[in-house]
Amino acid sequence: MRNFELYNPTKIVFGNGTISRIGEVTAKYGKKALLVSTRGSIKRLGLFDKVKKTLLNAGVDSIDLIGIEPNPKLESVINGATICKENKVDVIVALGGGSVIDCAKAIAFAALDDGDPWDFFIKKRSPKEDNSLPLIAALTLSATGSEMNFNSVITNQKTRQKLATHFDMSYPKVSIIDPELQITIPKFFTACGMVDTIAHVLESYFDGGENTPIQDRIAEGIVLTVIENESVLDDLENTANRANISWASTLALNGINTAGRENKPLYAHKIEHEIGGTYDIIHAAGLTPIMPAIFEILCKANPSKFKQFNERVFGADKNMDPLKSGLEGIEKLKQKFVKWEMPLKLSEAGVEKPGLDLIALNASKSIKDELFSKEVVTKILNDNF
Amino acid sequence: MRNFELYNPTKIVFGNGTISRIGEVTAKYGKKALLVSTRGSIKRLGLFDKVKKTLLNAGVDSIDLIGIEPNPKLESVINGATICKENKVDVIVALGGGSVIDCAKAIAFAALDDGDPWDFFIKKRSPKEDNSLPLIAALTLSATGSEMNFNSVITNQKTRQKLATHFDMSYPKVSIIDPELQITIPKFFTACGMVDTIAHVLESYFDGGENTPIQDRIAEGIVLTVIENESVLDDLENTANRANISWASTLALNGINTAGRENKPLYAHKIEHEIGGTYDIIHAAGLTPIMPAIFEILCKANPSKFKQFNERVFGADKNMDPLKSGLEGIEKLKQKFVKWEMPLKLSEAGVEKPGLDLIALNASKSIKDELFSKEVVTKILNDNF
Repeated sequence: MRNFELYNPTKIVFGNGTISRIGEVTAKYGKKALLVSTRGSIKRLGLFDKVKKTLLNAGVDSIDLIGIEPNPKLESVINGATICKENKVDVIVALGGGSVIDCAKAIAFAALDDGDPWDFFIKKRSPKEDNSLPLIAALTLSATGSEMNFNSVITNQKTRQKLATHFDMSYPKVSIIDPELQITIPKFFTACGMVDTIAHVLESYFDGGENTPIQDRIAEGIVLTVIENESVLDDLENTANRANISWASTLALNGINTAGRENKPLYAHKIEHEIGGTYDIIHAAGLTPIMPAIFEILCKANPSKFKQFNERVFGADKNMDPLKSGLEGIEKLKQKFVKWEMPLKLSEAGVEKPGLDLIALNASKSIKDELFSKEVVTKILNDNF
Repeated sequence: MRNFELYNPTKIVFGNGTISRIGEVTAKYGKKALLVSTRGSIKRLGLFDKVKKTLLNAGVDSIDLIGIEPNPKLESVINGATICKENKVDVIVALGGGSVIDCAKAIAFAALDDGDPWDFFIKKRSPKEDNSLPLIAALTLSATGSEMNFNSVITNQKTRQKLATHFDMSYPKVSIIDPELQITIPKFFTACGMVDTIAHVLESYFDGGENTPIQDRIAEGIVLTVIENESVLDDLENTANRANISWASTLALNGINTAGRENKPLYAHKIEHEIGGTYDIIHAAGLTPIMPAIFEILCKANPSKFKQFNERVFGADKNMDPLKSGLEGIEKLKQKFVKWEMPLKLSEAGVEKPGLDLIALNASKSIKDELFSKEVVTKILNDNF
């Protein structure tokens, strides 16, 4: 186990019906909120208006910022920060999935800064400590774990970069995770959340070093919980399944299962971020085509953790040859993606041929690992196009 | 899964050698510290003086409060609080195991209060929010999880009560967990820490309700990690084993594995707290004689979780009869206690016959569950005397 620091001050309010507490929770932090959300079903199905009313009943006036898209854009961040400055907003409320929460985190620090917020993403400047508006998140789609971490991933369309910040001040003060809000999520996006959760866990699990038994058990527990609750895809309104997947998703990227592991790059995420910077696709749909190929390369280099995965998650025989067992586990995972109707080809996810070379070049530069040279990444992209 | 709130703002600094950071970490919170510790090996082996010097090098002056005993006493709390008031102490540093940290938590809030701190334990008064000195903990014995929770268990010798407070302000600001500090812990106390860790997890696991798959996996992972690292008892200086057991111990009672479970009383802990209020014994040595008997009663009432435990922790056949499998798992756990040389009789732990009736009465009152009437608790105590 490596030495580590772990800090996560986000307060979680979890359970069916807890969205009704959004007003009470927010009022502790401010009286004038920026309510950040999407233009889609949250608005259409009345949740947005319900939240706005609950805030008002608790004495919190809110200004709307709707229209945050998947892969949130830098211009949305700048727009939100400007509204905050002009209206003396004192608290941000994010109502949505990872994209909305990531965007709200960036708005929260951009609102108290006078420069270009992109400076923080390209590390041109560092923000002052604790110089961020308080953020309350109400989660409507479990996937990214943004509700209980300090990551904010933003896309700059001008430079075609998708980059992340990680500041202690970006942890939401409180996140409400109400699984009932997710029963209207269609099958495809539910599956995307399940994939994203598994990807967060397995990327660090498979390359996280030796002697991490408790981290491994937690990681395997998260993957098993997602798989054992996969029937939600045929029963979208099952709140028991939703609750289990939802909590597993939060735990997948809140630091608990990675603390003490080697700090290796998340290869599939690095490559997908380059793809996502160029083509505006759904994150998880960009992961499923490339993740098995990446895992195969890692497995051939060192099969021991893959063997353990196949045994503990898929019940494989412990006497199998390590490489054979490892590769079998990857194939079984791939079959889960098939069962969940996720794309296994980048072209099905909306990626086009032009730009693949540049994506491979940038991804290999970002990964900085000899196993994933530009040539190898190019092959992964082409083989799974 | 039940609705829940989860909040844990303690920052963990984990790893071999991290004790050297105690000065830097403490200096962020204050310049005049109360350094709380025990009179035993921490002082004898030079760790206390080393920490004091590291604090001083970081500009933190410290006043000593040594002599905190297992089952920390209310008078130590009052004594510590008086020193803080008289010397304008602005930060508390706890150097020790759970007893020292529990005591330091109570000193931290008693130092800013003018009344009797016992009022908070018997719920006669509630403290003001955030009215506590900041606490930095450096852990020297993994067992209670106090380094990453808000529990403070204090014994009032006058009233023979051992009671706990749970205030958000009692989370340590930072806890340093340096496994290397634990290589001098003798075999018996190492085993006690392992038992305490397992007890924290299993008490809520076995009676924590249905549909908690991710919580169950984490709990099983913690127990498995302790068992798979038991060779530390024959190789006390093995820091890899120490690190795994240590981190498992912290996770056992930091809220992660209990969030979402039914909030049932921890039966063995409730009974042991009554024993510990009367006889000044080692906490874990009071648990091992009674825990198997308590689990047997719970298993006979509902064997399903015990069957799962035997399968996932001890590899039992899934086709076994549930009750038979459940009881077999408890027996295997008991055999672990035997292997670790823990007492299986209360008399071996230092408990005496007089007072057992009163202990049973108070424990059953505190548990408030028909399965554990005064008669049943009396039988448990006598059968395992």
